[in-house]
Amino acid sequence: MSADRLSNVSKEVKPESVSLCPLGTAAAPERELLCIFGTGDLGRTLGQRLLQSGYRVVYGSRRPHSCGPLPQGAQVLSHEAAAQSADLVFICIHRVHYDFLETLAPQLKGKVLVDVSNNLKKNLYPEANAEYLQRLIPGAHVVKAFNTLSAWALQNGPSDANRQVYVCGNRAEAKQAVAEVATKLGFAVVDRGSLTAAKELEDFPLQLFPEWRLPLRIAVGLTAFFFVYVVMRDVVYAYVDQGKDISFRIMVSMANKVFPIVSLTMLSLCYVPGVIAAFLQLYRGTKYKRFPDWLDRWMLCRKQMGLVALGFAFLHVLYTLIIPIRHYVRFKIAAGTIAQIRENRTSVLDTTLAWRTDSYFSIGILGFGLYVLLGITSLPSVSNALSWREFSFIQSKLGYLTVFFCTFHTYLYGWDKFLRPSYYKWYTPPAYLLALVVPSVLLVLKLLLLLPCVDRTLTRIRQGWERTDPEDSSKNALLT
Amino acid sequence: MSADRLSNVSKEVKPESVSLCPLGTAAAPERELLCIFGTGDLGRTLGQRLLQSGYRVVYGSRRPHSCGPLPQGAQVLSHEAAAQSADLVFICIHRVHYDFLETLAPQLKGKVLVDVSNNLKKNLYPEANAEYLQRLIPGAHVVKAFNTLSAWALQNGPSDANRQVYVCGNRAEAKQAVAEVATKLGFAVVDRGSLTAAKELEDFPLQLFPEWRLPLRIAVGLTAFFFVYVVMRDVVYAYVDQGKDISFRIMVSMANKVFPIVSLTMLSLCYVPGVIAAFLQLYRGTKYKRFPDWLDRWMLCRKQMGLVALGFAFLHVLYTLIIPIRHYVRFKIAAGTIAQIRENRTSVLDTTLAWRTDSYFSIGILGFGLYVLLGITSLPSVSNALSWREFSFIQSKLGYLTVFFCTFHTYLYGWDKFLRPSYYKWYTPPAYLLALVVPSVLLVLKLLLLLPCVDRTLTRIRQGWERTDPEDSSKNALLT
Amino acid sequence: MSADRLSNVSKEVKPESVSLCPLGTAAAPERELLCIFGTGDLGRTLGQRLLQSGYRVVYGSRRPHSCGPLPQGAQVLSHEAAAQSADLVFICIHRVHYDFLETLAPQLKGKVLVDVSNNLKKNLYPEANAEYLQRLIPGAHVVKAFNTLSAWALQNGPSDANRQVYVCGNRAEAKQAVAEVATKLGFAVVDRGSLTAAKELEDFPLQLFPEWRLPLRIAVGLTAFFFVYVVMRDVVYAYVDQGKDISFRIMVSMANKVFPIVSLTMLSLCYVPGVIAAFLQLYRGTKYKRFPDWLDRWMLCRKQMGLVALGFAFLHVLYTLIIPIRHYVRFKIAAGTIAQIRENRTSVLDTTLAWRTDSYFSIGILGFGLYVLLGITSLPSVSNALSWREFSFIQSKLGYLTVFFCTFHTYLYGWDKFLRPSYYKWYTPPAYLLALVVPSVLLVLKLLLLLPCVDRTLTRIRQGWERTDPEDSSKNALLT
Repeated sequence: MSADRLSNVSKEVKPESVSLCPLGTAAAPERELLCIFGTGDLGRTLGQRLLQSGYRVVYGSRRPHSCGPLPQGAQVLSHEAAAQSADLVFICIHRVHYDFLETLAPQLKGKVLVDVSNNLKKNLYPEANAEYLQRLIPGAHVVKAFNTLSAWALQNGPSDANRQVYVCGNRAEAKQAVAEVATKLGFAVVDRGSLTAAKELEDFPLQLFPEWRLPLRIAVGLTAFFFVYVVMRDVVYAYVDQGKDISFRIMVSMANKVFPIVSLTMLSLCYVPGVIAAFLQLYRGTKYKRFPDWLDRWMLCRKQMGLVALGFAFLHVLYTLIIPIRHYVRFKIAAGTIAQIRENRTSVLDTTLAWRTDSYFSIGILGFGLYVLLGITSLPSVSNALSWREFSFIQSKLGYLTVFFCTFHTYLYGWDKFLRPSYYKWYTPPAYLLALVVPSVLLVLKLLLLLPCVDRTLTRIRQGWERTDPEDSSKNALLT
Repeated sequence: MSADRLSNVSKEVKPESVSLCPLGTAAAPERELLCIFGTGDLGRTLGQRLLQSGYRVVYGSRRPHSCGPLPQGAQVLSHEAAAQSADLVFICIHRVHYDFLETLAPQLKGKVLVDVSNNLKKNLYPEANAEYLQRLIPGAHVVKAFNTLSAWALQNGPSDANRQVYVCGNRAEAKQAVAEVATKLGFAVVDRGSLTAAKELEDFPLQLFPEWRLPLRIAVGLTAFFFVYVVMRDVVYAYVDQGKDISFRIMVSMANKVFPIVSLTMLSLCYVPGVIAAFLQLYRGTKYKRFPDWLDRWMLCRKQMGLVALGFAFLHVLYTLIIPIRHYVRFKIAAGTIAQIRENRTSVLDTTLAWRTDSYFSIGILGFGLYVLLGITSLPSVSNALSWREFSFIQSKLGYLTVFFCTFHTYLYGWDKFLRPSYYKWYTPPAYLLALVVPSVLLVLKLLLLLPCVDRTLTRIRQGWERTDPEDSSKNALLT
Repeated sequence: MSADRLSNVSKEVKPESVSLCPLGTAAAPERELLCIFGTGDLGRTLGQRLLQSGYRVVYGSRRPHSCGPLPQGAQVLSHEAAAQSADLVFICIHRVHYDFLETLAPQLKGKVLVDVSNNLKKNLYPEANAEYLQRLIPGAHVVKAFNTLSAWALQNGPSDANRQVYVCGNRAEAKQAVAEVATKLGFAVVDRGSLTAAKELEDFPLQLFPEWRLPLRIAVGLTAFFFVYVVMRDVVYAYVDQGKDISFRIMVSMANKVFPIVSLTMLSLCYVPGVIAAFLQLYRGTKYKRFPDWLDRWMLCRKQMGLVALGFAFLHVLYTLIIPIRHYVRFKIAAGTIAQIRENRTSVLDTTLAWRTDSYFSIGILGFGLYVLLGITSLPSVSNALSWREFSFIQSKLGYLTVFFCTFHTYLYGWDKFLRPSYYKWYTPPAYLLALVVPSVLLVLKLLLLLPCVDRTLTRIRQGWERTDPEDSSKNALLT
C-alpha cells in the first residue's frame, strides 16, 4: 500500500503546492516552508494541518521512498535535505530516537527545532525531552510547543480545552517564529519563559487533577465514615433495638445527614492551615522559616477543598428541598393529621419552635448564598479580575463569615438535642455534634488571633520583623 | 453649521495641541501624530478618543474646508498632506469608496494602514475589506483592527464585551504599532495572525450565536412536539374521555413533563455523534478519511447542545421543587387525608414505594449535580485551565455517567408504568418512554464500544493504524 | 545578629552561585544578574524568589556591611557598584527615599528601573511613583511592574488572584526585559501601555470594589426601608390591631417579601439609565454632548447592580422553596385540613386559582432562568468570548424580557389584592405594589422608545446625525 501511495504523494507535490496559492493574491508573500521530522501519526496530522493553513511542508524521513502515506501536497526528503530546506523543524519523533539527530547537528545549526513530544508517564527521564534535544544539538534553538494539545485539536484546530499553545525556549526570536505558526493555526500563544519550563509543559498533558486528589480523598473518607456512622446509629439501631426496618431512609434522609457534615468539615479545613500557619509564625517569631511540607501541601489545595465543600453543600440544599415531595414525608404528615383528628387533640402553634426553625432555615440559606459567592469568585476569570486586596477580602473575611453562618445553622439545628440522653444511642453522640468539632475549634482559634495584642505581633512578623531572642519566643508571641 | 464649526476646529488646532501637553513632563516623548481618513461618525468618534488618550490627530478629507464638525484639537488636511504627516493611518471610510485610495499609493507607501471597517452582512464581497485594501495599495502595511468593538467602546474605552482588540496583518512591526495604540486606549490586544484572518474578524461582529442555532432549533422543535404530545394525551384525552377540564395543569405539570424529556434527549444527542464517529472509523478502518459534513457540524455544536440541555434540567429542578407549594397539590393532599378519615381507612407505609421514590429523587439530584459540574467546566476560563486529559475525563467519562444517572432516574420514575395498558391512552406510549429511546440506544452502543476487542481496534485506528484490506472492513472491525 | 549573618551571606555568595549552576547544562546561557535596591522585607522576598528562579542577585545598599539578613546566594554592594553590575534594577525603596537616587543618575543611565512600589492610600502624591522616578532619572527606562502582586505571590509564585503581572513603561525593550523576568517567575504578563498608566496600576492594589459601592449601598438602603415597611405593616399592625404576636414570621416570611422587591427594583434600575440616556439624546438631538456625571456613574455600575439583583433573586428562590418544610406552614395546613373535617365542609378545586398560582410560579421560574443566564454571560470569560452584537442581544433584549417576566410574575402574585381595602393597612399600599413602580415605568418608557417614529430618530442620532435647529428639538424628537 504505502509505496504506491507515496509515489502518489511525491508526484503531486509540485502541482498541488502551486494550485493552492490563491490566484488573486499576487502581492501576498510566498508561502513559508516548514519541515517535519517523522512520518508517524503525529507528523502526518500536523503536516495536514499546516498544509491546510497555507504552509508548504517538507518531511524529513530515514527512508524517503517508503515512509507510508503522507498528506497530499507534502514533499518527502532525506533528513539532511529536509533540514536544510527550512528554518523551522518540527521534531515528531519519540524521544528514544532523538540520539540520531546528533549526526544532523551541522544541518540543524541555527534552525528552530520545535519539540512537540510527550512522555507516557511522569519522571521517566531525568531531564525534559526538549532540554535533552537542546543538549544534543547545542547549535539549534529548541522551542517546546504544541505538546499540550490533543490530537483532535492538532487535526481540527482550536476547541474547548485546546485554545492555548504553551511555548518555552531560550531564544526569543525562535519562540516568536513558533508563535507565528501557532497563531496562524488559530491558537492563542502563552509564553512560559525559558527551556527550564519544558519539564512542566511535558508533565501538563499527563496530569489528572493533581491538586484535587487530597481534597477528594478527604471527601471520600469523611463521606464513608459518616455514612457508616449514621447508618449504624439510625438503621441498624432501629432494627436491633425495635426490630423496625427503616432502611429506605438511606437514600435521602441518611444522605442528607452526611452531606452537610462533610461540607461543613471540609469548609473549615480550608481555613485551618491559615490559622496553624499564623500560630507557627507567632511561635517562631519570624516569617522567613519555611512551613513544614504537610502544611504547604494543605495550603495549596485550599481552593479545591472549598469547592468540594461547596459541591456537598449544593447536594445538601437539593436533598433538603425535595423533602416535602417524598412519599414517606407525605405519609407521615397525613398520619399525623389523621391521628390528631381521631384523638380529638387540638394543637397550638409553638412560636418558639417556629422562631427556631425559621432562623435555622434563614441562616442556612444566607450561609449557602455566601458559599456560592466564594465559589464564583474562585472561577479563574473572576479572580483574575480582582485585585489581591479584593480577593483576600472575599476569601478570608467572607469565608470566615460563611463558616460562622454554617456553624450557627448547625447549632440551631441541634438546639438542645445534645442534652437529651435518648440521642446518644449506643453511647455515641449524634452525627451533627461531630460536624461541629472542627468549625468550633477553628472559630475559637481565629478569635484568639483577632485579639489586638496577638494581631499586632503577627502583623509585625508578616512585615518582616523578627524576634531577636529565640529562647522565650513562645511566651513572647502571646504576651507582647 | 458645519462650515462655521470647522473653521473653529481648524483655528483651535495649534493652541489646543500645545496646551494639552502637561507642563511637568518635559522629558516625555513628543506626542505621536496619527492620521484618520474619513470624517464620518466613526472617524469622529475614534479621533476624539485618540485625542483624549494623548495622541495628536490629523484628519485626511476630500474637502478639508467643509468636512463637518470634528473633535476639538484635531487638524484637517487633504488626504495627501495628512497621509504624509503620519506613519499610521486609520481608514474610516466605507469599502465602496476604497478605490480612490489607489491614487494615494505613493503617499501611503510604507505606512501602516489600519482597516477598521465592517460590512452590513456576511459574504457581501469575495475578499475581506482589509485584503482588498492591501491589494489596492501593495506598498502599505495593512492591519485589520478595532472593527470588533462597539461604537460605545470606541468612544468610552473598554467595557464588558469590549476589552479585546483583535489584530491581524502580514507585517509584525505594523501589528506592533497598532497594538501600542490599542494598549494605550486601554484595550487588551489579541494577535490573530496574518491578513488572511481578516475575513474572520470582519464576520465576527455580525455573528449572532452561529453555533447555538442548531441546538436551539432542536430544543424548540423537541419542546413543541412533546408539549403538544403531552397536552393531547393528558388534557385533551381527559376532556374527550371523561369531560373533565384539567387545562390548568398546562402551566406547571405539563411543562415539568416536557422539560426533563427535552433535557435528557439533548444531553444524549451530545454524545451520539462521538459514538457514530467511532463506528464510522471502525467500519472504514482508518481515521484519515473525513467525516460527512452533517457529522462534523453536529460535533461542533455538542457543547452548546449540552448547555441547552442543562438549562432545561435547571428548569425541571425548579418546577419539581415548587410542586408542594402549588394550590392544586395542597388541595389534592388535603382531599386525600380527608377521604381517608371519612372512609375510616388506615394506611400503612409502603416501604417499597418509599425506597423507589427516594432512589428516584436521589439519583436525579446526583445526576443534576454532575450536569452542573459539566456546565461549569465548559466555562471558557475553567476549560482553559484544564489539561486536555482532564477536560476529556470530565466531558467524556463524567458526561456518560451523567447520561446514565439521568436515564436511570427516568427508568425509576417510570417503574412498571410501561406494563399497564391504562397508560397507553389512544394507543400512544407515555411521553417518558419516548424520552428513554435516545439515551438507551446511546448507552448500549457505548457499551459495545467498551468491549475490549472493539476498544483495542479503535485505539489502534486512532493512533494512526489503517486496515490494509478495505473489502471486508466492516466484519473486521467488529471481529478483530 | 545582623552583622554576623551578613558576613555569612557575603562569604557564601561565590560558592553558592557556582554550585547552583546545574552541571549538565554547560550549553545554557550564563545566569543573568539582576540588581535590587533596598534590603527591606520586599527586597528580601523578591531577591529570594529571583534566586530560586535561577537568577543571580546583587543588592544595592547604603550600608553594604550592615544591612541585615539577606537571602543566601545574594551579593551586597554599594548602590553605585550594584547599579553598574546589572542592566535591570528593582527599586524596593519607599517613595519618600527616592530623591537620593538622583545622585546615582550617571550609573543608572540606560538601565531598566523596575518600580514595584505602592502607596498606603490613593492620591497621596500628585504624580505616580513611577513617573516621579522617571522624572528624577530621565536617562533610565522606568517600568512599573509587580506592584499588584501580594507579598505571598512574590514569595511563592502565582496563585489564584495573582497570576498576572501588569507592566507599563515608555520603552518597549525595557518592558520586554521585565516581561521576561516575570514570565520566568511563572506569571502571565499584561502590557498596560506607557508610563501614564502607572497611576492606575498603583491605585489597583488599594481598590476595594469601587464599582460595587453604589449598588451595594442602594441594595442596603432598599432592604432596610422595605424591611421596616413590611415589619410595620405586618408584625406591628397585627400586634397593635389584634394583639397577636407573629414576630416569628420575620425570619422567613418578611425576608421573602423584601428580597424579591429589592431584586426587581434593582434589576429595573439597571435599565433605567439607558432609557434616560435615549430620551436625553432625543431631546438634545445629538449624541456628541456628554451625559451628566450622575448618569455616567449610574451607567458604569449597571453590571454590578444586576448581579446584586440576581443575588437577591437567588435568595428569594431559596426562601420560597423551603416554605413547605417550615413548621408554621405545616401547622397551618394541618389546621386547615382538621378544621375542614370538623366543620364537615367539602371544598372544590378552584381552577381559576390553580391557573393563576401555577402561571405565577411558571413565569417566575422562567424569569429566574433568564436572570441566571444574564448573570452567566456577565462572567468575564464568557463576555470576552461573545461578539458585541451577541453581548448586547443578551444584556438588552433578554434583559428586558427578564424585567418583563419578573414584573408579570409580581402582577400575578398581586392579582386583585390592590382592589381590596383590607390590604391597605394604616392607609399604606402593600409592599409588592411599591415594587411594581420602577419596572412598570421602565417598561412603559421602553415601549415609547420602540415606537417606529421614535426608534428611527434615535437610530439616526446614534449614527452621528445631528438635529440642526436646536430650538424645537424636544417636539421634533417625539414627532419626527
